[in-house]
Amino acid sequence: MTFEEAQQLDATDPLAFARARFRLPAGVIYLDGNSLGALPAAAPAALAETAERQWGADLIASWNKHDWIDWPTKIAGRLAPLVGAKPNELLLADSTSICLFKLLAAAATARPGRKTILSQKRNFPTDLYAAEGVAGLLGLTLNPVEPKEVIAAIDQDTAVLTLTHVDYRSASIFDMAAINAAARAAGALVVWDLSHSAGAIELDLNGAGSELAVGCGYKYLNGGPGAPAFMYIAEQLQDELANPLQGWMGHAEPFAFVDDFRPVRGISRFLTGTPPILSLAALAAGIASFNNIAMRDLAAKSKSLSALFIAEVEARCGGSVRLQSPRDPVQRGSHVVFAHPEGYAVMQALIARGVIGDFRAPDLMRFGFAPLYNNHAEMVRAAEILADVLATREWDQPRFRERAKVT
Amino acid sequence: MTFEEAQQLDATDPLAFARARFRLPAGVIYLDGNSLGALPAAAPAALAETAERQWGADLIASWNKHDWIDWPTKIAGRLAPLVGAKPNELLLADSTSICLFKLLAAAATARPGRKTILSQKRNFPTDLYAAEGVAGLLGLTLNPVEPKEVIAAIDQDTAVLTLTHVDYRSASIFDMAAINAAARAAGALVVWDLSHSAGAIELDLNGAGSELAVGCGYKYLNGGPGAPAFMYIAEQLQDELANPLQGWMGHAEPFAFVDDFRPVRGISRFLTGTPPILSLAALAAGIASFNNIAMRDLAAKSKSLSALFIAEVEARCGGSVRLQSPRDPVQRGSHVVFAHPEGYAVMQALIARGVIGDFRAPDLMRFGFAPLYNNHAEMVRAAEILADVLATREWDQPRFRERAKVT
Repeated sequence: MTFEEAQQLDATDPLAFARARFRLPAGVIYLDGNSLGALPAAAPAALAETAERQWGADLIASWNKHDWIDWPTKIAGRLAPLVGAKPNELLLADSTSICLFKLLAAAATARPGRKTILSQKRNFPTDLYAAEGVAGLLGLTLNPVEPKEVIAAIDQDTAVLTLTHVDYRSASIFDMAAINAAARAAGALVVWDLSHSAGAIELDLNGAGSELAVGCGYKYLNGGPGAPAFMYIAEQLQDELANPLQGWMGHAEPFAFVDDFRPVRGISRFLTGTPPILSLAALAAGIASFNNIAMRDLAAKSKSLSALFIAEVEARCGGSVRLQSPRDPVQRGSHVVFAHPEGYAVMQALIARGVIGDFRAPDLMRFGFAPLYNNHAEMVRAAEILADVLATREWDQPRFRERAKVT
Repeated sequence: MTFEEAQQLDATDPLAFARARFRLPAGVIYLDGNSLGALPAAAPAALAETAERQWGADLIASWNKHDWIDWPTKIAGRLAPLVGAKPNELLLADSTSICLFKLLAAAATARPGRKTILSQKRNFPTDLYAAEGVAGLLGLTLNPVEPKEVIAAIDQDTAVLTLTHVDYRSASIFDMAAINAAARAAGALVVWDLSHSAGAIELDLNGAGSELAVGCGYKYLNGGPGAPAFMYIAEQLQDELANPLQGWMGHAEPFAFVDDFRPVRGISRFLTGTPPILSLAALAAGIASFNNIAMRDLAAKSKSLSALFIAEVEARCGGSVRLQSPRDPVQRGSHVVFAHPEGYAVMQALIARGVIGDFRAPDLMRFGFAPLYNNHAEMVRAAEILADVLATREWDQPRFRERAKVT
């Protein structure tokens, strides 16, 4: 496809208007919204309003006057149409890793006698670290198996299973409904990590019979670096589960200041400390960038972008890169990876040319597509630049091999 | 003391210049910096810089380019002179409640065989909730005793003791060195909660032989609503303790993306998820409001303010309010409480008159003094208004009795 043909596709894109909801630097093709979403145009004003008018002028009264105390549930509720849940099944809190700890420990405790936390090998590392931590504290065993063996590994000893729905490397998607059904049949709970799913692909947590999930606020949700995470607990489970990280914000009467912990009813019992209001203000702006946009349309655009990118890269780069993501778009999230033996250096050369993706060890170049702001013309241009970088061996310079602290 | 005499005191206050480091609304006497510190004048620009120039323009590259990855340790290190610790003994992360969970669980695990977590009755509630949570997970017992009985209660079964250094109600101060010594003699660890101490009174964690502490970022440190908390781990303990909330940011090689958890050396192993960059930017501005100010001077001003406030309230209000804080300034933090049977309504009437303190059940009116921005004239004016509200029974209106959600 030529750049002009791609531009024609963009001219008829019903979501093209959404790009104006973001501030993107000129001259950059940003294909890393799967790692850090772009700045919503409304975020700076939201931060200024929260800091200057609320914190600055109304001070402590803001907890009531601006309803800060309810932001973790109120803003979370706006994720409901993105993930296919009821608003009261969602909460914003902490970080993804800590939310995962909370749900894994709560789930394992709700299945006493069962000794295994099940997961997959090569899961997103922090998920395995959190699960290992829970296992250590509760005297359980963490059992990471090959992705294909997950369903077969669920048994009567499985307390809880945790999986990342869309693989952070390959973007391959687990069959949520099938795995939920297998776990339910065995009496085990499942905690889904939706970090690479929410805001990127269609989700129907309720419809798939999901009971527990966590997800990241700073990737496709555009909540800003280190944004609070979200947590999903199906309504019927909420009052059955206990938050292992007890704190005053999860108390039935946080301002009664009593010595004994009595959890509030509903998902708020999974709050711990004081909500991070400034971060929540930015995350609210990120979530608002999805206003009036159907996830079905978004997912369709995602597939259109990734399919075009794969086709253009393969057509232009020949065999010098190997697709390591599923070729079938139904089995693929909103990013793709290509392997190249010098993937790190190639990615740095691309970044120097304004095409920003990232690198995942050992040899994967990762490109994410945020349908709210990426477009088809960018796919063609990025593939063209990648082909040029490879053909000219532009990547073959010491400055592109030097590893940064964060990759 | 007359208002004019108090103004003369302020005219010679060597810290008077620091008030300009904050934005305070006109017509307000803000005596609740112990609950939510005022907005540092530099915070809005710091947020705008972080959001617009860093996140917005440099996007994912900011983790390296703006050193985001090191903010949790780098900004924390600036607290060193405020708390009497080495810079590498401090970390910013999560919330106070979650930091407390981490240190309590780590400490208890480092004292295997010991079955008790010791604390005080009427500790700040979230501290007891967190401790109860740790006890439940680890099969230990939480034993909260009367404050006076703490030292006597430390024994060979005590794994860890946790106390709030300055009581959130009375402002009475525990003798940190004496309690550390008693715990050390018994082989127990101590986790101090410095939420009402840091930035308010002189602290010498190293000198007092303290090993572990947490504290709040949004009170006297002025970090903004729900700011990240800080954590202190004495250098010699850091590599001995394990973070129970394992996550990738505490890994020796977070970007190697390996399945097995291997903690980094030093205090960063107590990180879990991705650092909340926007919140850290605001907290950095709050910590910077202490630049070039000695804690000794700050503490002296705090005592001068609170002593004046007590004297003026007692002189002007007669016996209608009862001081429930230590009268000896050496034993008192940077706030005071007065009891009144209708304390809630009286406080609401005060707030309506622009004197902002808060209420703590059952009958305590709490007034905090932030020496960076409060002054002596405010003490006299606030006492005068309190006396007027009491003398005229201005508080005796239904609108002042109606309890808000957050008190």
